[in-house]
Amino acid sequence: MQTFDVHILGCGSALPTRKHLPSAQVVNLRDKLLLLDCGEGTQLAWRSTGLNWQHISHIFLTHAHGDHVFGLPGLLSTMSLLGRISPLFVHGPSNLLNFIKFITADFLADIGYEIHFQAVDTQQHSVVFEDRSMEVWSLPLQHRVPCCGYLIKEKPGLPHIRREMIDFYGIPTWAINRIKAGDDWTTPDGEVIPHSRLTTPPDRVRSYAYCSDTMPVEQMAEWIDGVDLLYHEATYAENEATLAQRYGHSTARQAALVAQSAHARRLMIGHFSSRYADERILLQEAQEVFANTLLASEGLRISP
Amino acid sequence: MQTFDVHILGCGSALPTRKHLPSAQVVNLRDKLLLLDCGEGTQLAWRSTGLNWQHISHIFLTHAHGDHVFGLPGLLSTMSLLGRISPLFVHGPSNLLNFIKFITADFLADIGYEIHFQAVDTQQHSVVFEDRSMEVWSLPLQHRVPCCGYLIKEKPGLPHIRREMIDFYGIPTWAINRIKAGDDWTTPDGEVIPHSRLTTPPDRVRSYAYCSDTMPVEQMAEWIDGVDLLYHEATYAENEATLAQRYGHSTARQAALVAQSAHARRLMIGHFSSRYADERILLQEAQEVFANTLLASEGLRISP
Repeated sequence: MQTFDVHILGCGSALPTRKHLPSAQVVNLRDKLLLLDCGEGTQLAWRSTGLNWQHISHIFLTHAHGDHVFGLPGLLSTMSLLGRISPLFVHGPSNLLNFIKFITADFLADIGYEIHFQAVDTQQHSVVFEDRSMEVWSLPLQHRVPCCGYLIKEKPGLPHIRREMIDFYGIPTWAINRIKAGDDWTTPDGEVIPHSRLTTPPDRVRSYAYCSDTMPVEQMAEWIDGVDLLYHEATYAENEATLAQRYGHSTARQAALVAQSAHARRLMIGHFSSRYADERILLQEAQEVFANTLLASEGLRISP
Repeated sequence: MQTFDVHILGCGSALPTRKHLPSAQVVNLRDKLLLLDCGEGTQLAWRSTGLNWQHISHIFLTHAHGDHVFGLPGLLSTMSLLGRISPLFVHGPSNLLNFIKFITADFLADIGYEIHFQAVDTQQHSVVFEDRSMEVWSLPLQHRVPCCGYLIKEKPGLPHIRREMIDFYGIPTWAINRIKAGDDWTTPDGEVIPHSRLTTPPDRVRSYAYCSDTMPVEQMAEWIDGVDLLYHEATYAENEATLAQRYGHSTARQAALVAQSAHARRLMIGHFSSRYADERILLQEAQEVFANTLLASEGLRISP
């Protein structure tokens, strides 16, 4: 299977604690690195991943609250100090453009690479980025400020060559890529060997959805139906549902109901309120509705 | 002795490492907390000090480089979330005012306390803050942008009461404060007991100087003469003196020469370049000139 990993850098909420940093995750999809949110300390936590800064191509920001963006200035600065020259694409609600402009003007005058900001319509479910490996969709969320999550969908890879069949038919190397692309092979005797005999199907495609910060969104189930791994904020326990609603967040139970409706394979909950010394209370609450739930934690690496 | 502690939160330089956070220190002088610089991660490191956020009264910033200020937005935000209502005074070069205005306007709309910015003339050696416990002086530094360090000078406390003398003369409690303030005591028989017999002198006053980022400054020795503890940046070793000059920094040897000229009691070096996996090379270099040198390190608590 090709690489598709999610590295948790921070899964706390607005008040950082000794256990949790503010929100940030790195997605490594076939060695392309995407950063999801960038809370304070992201560049510090990054160093434990072993990943190469310079391979971050895109940063996807959900909303303009400090605990999701205050790590951005330091990260942008450090990448420049480390000699980055390739352009960086930052996606997020349009109200983040000023922040990026201000920081680059006041602190990053000598930056060695271009930063391209691409505003995301937080009320639209649409493709915000696409290349040959993936599609990234916006997921409108419901929070106190314009906010959207992101759905990362892997595109199908190529079929796998059946090495023994290539050897059996003496197929030359130059023909391999064409066969992978769908061609049959015609032997010197004129026999047509179908593509399906020479290959095995590509790996199943996987998907990852990142939903924070938000109250439960009814349409989410439709947008992320069948998602392999859903990260959904679960700031509060159900007995604090009133608080969750007041501040535009979800309870663990609500997160689990979203996962259930969406037929997710697995649910990972995070963005824990600092009031919980032990988040297992949130885990148990979610598991009562959706058994295949796990807790996010700093340093966790997980594949959808 | 009354409390006068320096807590090191970060003593790395522009590129944070696994060992070092960007610059930040907390000075606890008789339970008044001053923050010196505020690099990214300050609010995260703070939590290990056990100190109370709400007792920060003043923040002193040296210059507008990201590794000295990128922790400020998160810290200001968190203090508000934790219910701070008392005003906060932020001192620094005038070019930091826009940064603070921008952050408060865009991210701290609901902040529950006032932030007062007091511009510091980075070319003047003068008192920038004073109360009954201390004076804080600006120390003009030489860096790539306007920059000043800070000298914190404790004011004399009150003399100590000699308890046995108070008991011997039967002096009532209500008279204690007057005696501390300098009064003599007259017994019912008319005998005048001099103040000097009833008290011991106050504790010696102490001072702490924070000098970062900077090349060596010639007048520094005069401004901080006799300082108890000098923190001086030592970004590079002497064999990188050319780099130090290019980027407006000091070598360990140069930091030690400043301490020597200033008749400092102790020197603490910090702001280490990330190129040094082991800073003892810098320590040894400094100690060859000024024996009483130590390395700053995250989590260190030290008294001048």
